[in-house]
Amino acid sequence: MRSAVLRDGRMVVRGDVPDPEPAFGQVLVQVKACGICGSDLHFARHGATMLRLGQEMRGMPEVGGLTPPDPARDVFMGHEFAAEVLDYGPDTVGPAPGSVVTSMPVMLTMAGVRDLAYSNDLPAGYSERMLLSAPLLVQAPGGLDPRLVALTEPMAVGLHAVNRSGIKAGEGAIVLGSGPVGLAVIAALRLAGAEPIVATDYSAMRRRLAGVMGAHEVVDPGEEPAFDAWARLGNGRTPVVFEAVGVPGMIDDAMRDAPRHSRVVVVGVCMEPDRITPFWGIAKELAVQFVLGYEPHEFAGTLTAIADGRLDVAPLITGEVPLEGLPGAFEELGSPDRHAKILVVP
Amino acid sequence: MRSAVLRDGRMVVRGDVPDPEPAFGQVLVQVKACGICGSDLHFARHGATMLRLGQEMRGMPEVGGLTPPDPARDVFMGHEFAAEVLDYGPDTVGPAPGSVVTSMPVMLTMAGVRDLAYSNDLPAGYSERMLLSAPLLVQAPGGLDPRLVALTEPMAVGLHAVNRSGIKAGEGAIVLGSGPVGLAVIAALRLAGAEPIVATDYSAMRRRLAGVMGAHEVVDPGEEPAFDAWARLGNGRTPVVFEAVGVPGMIDDAMRDAPRHSRVVVVGVCMEPDRITPFWGIAKELAVQFVLGYEPHEFAGTLTAIADGRLDVAPLITGEVPLEGLPGAFEELGSPDRHAKILVVP
Repeated sequence: MRSAVLRDGRMVVRGDVPDPEPAFGQVLVQVKACGICGSDLHFARHGATMLRLGQEMRGMPEVGGLTPPDPARDVFMGHEFAAEVLDYGPDTVGPAPGSVVTSMPVMLTMAGVRDLAYSNDLPAGYSERMLLSAPLLVQAPGGLDPRLVALTEPMAVGLHAVNRSGIKAGEGAIVLGSGPVGLAVIAALRLAGAEPIVATDYSAMRRRLAGVMGAHEVVDPGEEPAFDAWARLGNGRTPVVFEAVGVPGMIDDAMRDAPRHSRVVVVGVCMEPDRITPFWGIAKELAVQFVLGYEPHEFAGTLTAIADGRLDVAPLITGEVPLEGLPGAFEELGSPDRHAKILVVP
Repeated sequence: MRSAVLRDGRMVVRGDVPDPEPAFGQVLVQVKACGICGSDLHFARHGATMLRLGQEMRGMPEVGGLTPPDPARDVFMGHEFAAEVLDYGPDTVGPAPGSVVTSMPVMLTMAGVRDLAYSNDLPAGYSERMLLSAPLLVQAPGGLDPRLVALTEPMAVGLHAVNRSGIKAGEGAIVLGSGPVGLAVIAALRLAGAEPIVATDYSAMRRRLAGVMGAHEVVDPGEEPAFDAWARLGNGRTPVVFEAVGVPGMIDDAMRDAPRHSRVVVVGVCMEPDRITPFWGIAKELAVQFVLGYEPHEFAGTLTAIADGRLDVAPLITGEVPLEGLPGAFEELGSPDRHAKILVVP
């Protein structure tokens, strides 16, 4: 079958990937849509750094977590998928063949949980077909467009960041950056009743989407800094600040400008070393909360919100490509003015 | 009267400081003891940087907060003081003359609260006499040694950090660095029922004091890293990590080594730019809480704990000097193996 893989920092479409066969506990699915995630672009560019930092890091459970791939071999990617059930392994049950499903991008194995994407041997969402763990399937209601189901994963990231922030209805927030992560945060903030939500982006297209997803005020930081907009709208309150850009310098800027006692939630994934000014954090007693991923209930709850219409993700889909279009889409996503989410439809 | 002031980065004893006269709302006190704080050494070395960073920083209330001194003029310092009431301004009442008192190091003025130390014109604790705001006086019980009362301020810093961390009785903690700040954190953790408390320091003298103040295990990080000791003692739990060293690199080291979902409380005051690896914070969803100072109830509560014997601070006093000995004491505190807290007894 066909799969797109990362090879020497570039995406390559292979036609010779062995067809996966479901074992006990596994289900074979046909990928209907898979979103391209900024993390995949990051990994293509900074994969070696990520793997080195991961090896230097301590404090993670020994079982599970990241299973580092060998970057010298092909790496399968694609973790924002919606798929149709084809077949189950022996003695394995789940939603009927033909059902549309998604799953957190992990596999249960006898050795623990392992990542489904960023693997040398498990085909992931940028493939015609893939294996999933049957107990982890989350079934979409009948008739729900698989392209919307594919947005479950990135939107769950926003919900998790908002839950972790502890923000309450009626509190306000600043969202720095309105790329896919920032837009997911904005949508989750709106569902949580946060007000006002002040969002920023240099891109006019993304500013428009920020408003569509629920931001009350959207500014071009080149014209009005986010914290100036907050001074206009915040009524002297302390916002929760979401850093959703993920490039060096953003955390320090937020620490310099955030009001005293602010919470700064870092949801943008900055892969490079960064510089901060501890004095600003200390003088204002800031809390910097780093977040990643989501819990199972957040993942399932996000699909429910998409299905029942509380979360309208259709505007986020700004492009669709076949598997063969994936290398070009990676290039195109380098210019953020044109796209939010591009789906691969194999 | 005599005061020690910071002039061109060095402490100088002046004999020509005008005797302060209490106005309405003020009390004239005679300083009985004043601790030398690491922040004063930091300010002597990095004062210009601190003032620049303070000017670049936004988000602080416009009234109150730091009133930046002019470093080209003499700067009065000394904010860990115990004093005896001498006289009140007109129409002002408070504890009887002869009472031993302390106060948070701020002055109430009609323009708001201003810092008492780091001022060009208000003599502070490194003086024979000083003015305090009568409503802010905290009176020590009769007979309590003023040298112990002078420890109220630095010990309140530890209590505040522990309160801010949200640690609960029975949770464990790692305290990186057992200088005066780390020792105050250890004492507050012990009073809060934290267990185990794992402390570190390169200095044997400070390691001994860490044990005296209540650490259950104290390690030399050159022999056993703190997180290895935690692995021995923590029973697989997640510690609250207190960074009490305040030099560049410490926050990043803690982020690299801390277990997943840890809280890292930054109570050490690092005045220089610092480098962090956001990837470690993100991958482990760390929370980095910066803390500073204390609330009024924490300050008063600390004096109560000293007075009733729950907080034995006597072992922390490793030296006493007269005002004239202050310049030499600043030099001596550069070698941390010999001292925890040096008191100036004017």
